[in-house]
Amino acid sequence: MAEPRIAVALVHHPVLNRLGETSTTAVTSMDVHDFVRSCAFYDVAPVFLVHPADGMHALVGAMRGYWREGEGRSRNPGRGASLDALRLVRTLDEAVAAMDGPSVWFTSANPPAQGCIEVERLAALPGRHLIVFGTGWGLDVKSLQQPTGWLSPIEGIGMVRHLSVRAALAIYLDRLRR
Amino acid sequence: MAEPRIAVALVHHPVLNRLGETSTTAVTSMDVHDFVRSCAFYDVAPVFLVHPADGMHALVGAMRGYWREGEGRSRNPGRGASLDALRLVRTLDEAVAAMDGPSVWFTSANPPAQGCIEVERLAALPGRHLIVFGTGWGLDVKSLQQPTGWLSPIEGIGMVRHLSVRAALAIYLDRLRR
Repeated sequence: MAEPRIAVALVHHPVLNRLGETSTTAVTSMDVHDFVRSCAFYDVAPVFLVHPADGMHALVGAMRGYWREGEGRSRNPGRGASLDALRLVRTLDEAVAAMDGPSVWFTSANPPAQGCIEVERLAALPGRHLIVFGTGWGLDVKSLQQPTGWLSPIEGIGMVRHLSVRAALAIYLDRLRR
Repeated sequence: MAEPRIAVALVHHPVLNRLGETSTTAVTSMDVHDFVRSCAFYDVAPVFLVHPADGMHALVGAMRGYWREGEGRSRNPGRGASLDALRLVRTLDEAVAAMDGPSVWFTSANPPAQGCIEVERLAALPGRHLIVFGTGWGLDVKSLQQPTGWLSPIEGIGMVRHLSVRAALAIYLDRLRR
C-alpha cells in the first residue's frame, strides 16, 4: 500500500503560552486519540507527536501499549489500529527528516498576510506534505525553521476567534479530502 | 441580536454502549469545551447538554462557574464567554421544547438509508434547526422521538469508520457555514 502523501505533526514545543512566551505543553490523551482517529478516517499518516521530554514519550508509549496489546485491544480494536500511525519525535526537524524532505505547512489562526494557501490546493501539489499544528497559544515560529508556507486560516463568523486544535485538524482534513 | 437559527444537542442518555445496549455516558469537560467553542466560532446556539443525572449537572455547573466567575475568568475570558451558550437539560425533549418546535436532525455514522439530507441544505430551510449528536456508540434511536430527518454521514476514505463526536461537530458546522 502506498504511503499517504499527507502527514500531520502536533507540536508541544516550541509553542507560545498565553503571555506569548516560548513554552512547552503537556500531551493530552484526548489530543492523541482525536488526531490519530481523524487522520485514520481520512487516510493521513504518519501522525508525528512532537515533544522534547522523555517522560511524555513514556506516557504516550504506555497509552499506546494499553490499546494495542493491553486490555484496550479487546475493548476497542479500532483505537489500537489507528495508533499505528503515531510517531513520537523530539523536534519538528526530526519529523521533517523522517519524511525525507516534505513540503511543510504551518497552521495558525493568525498567519502572515503573505504566503497562505487554501488546504484544498495541497491535493494538486506534487510530493509529500506535512501539516503542522501547535498546541497552547500556537507555534512559536521564531524558534522553528521557516516552513514552505502557511495554510489559510479557518474563518469563523461568531465571537470566538480560535477553534480547538482537534476541531481545526478535522476541518482541514475534511476540506482537503472532499 | 437575533437568536441563531441552528442549535446543537450532545446526548449522554439514551445512547448505545459498545454492546448495543441502552446506556448513559459521563460528561467529559473536553466535549463541553470543544462543543461550545466550535459553536461560538460558527455562531451556533444554544448548545444543549443532555444528561439525566443531577450530579453531572452540578459538575458542569461548577466547571462553568470556574471559567465565568472563578479564576478561569482572568486566565481565559473567551472560554467563559463561549460557555454562555450552554444549556443543561435532562432529556432531548426538554431541549426541543425550549426551542419551541425546531426541526430535529439526528447524526450517525450509519443513518437509515432513507431521509438523509446534506448539512449544507439546512441553511436554505426555514425555521430553527436542532442538530443532535450522541456520545458513546451513538444515539439510541428506539428510545427517542422520531426526528425530522438525519444528516448525511461524513464519509471517510481510510480504515477508521467513525470520527470523534468533537471532530464530527466541527466538520458539520464548517460545511454548513461555508
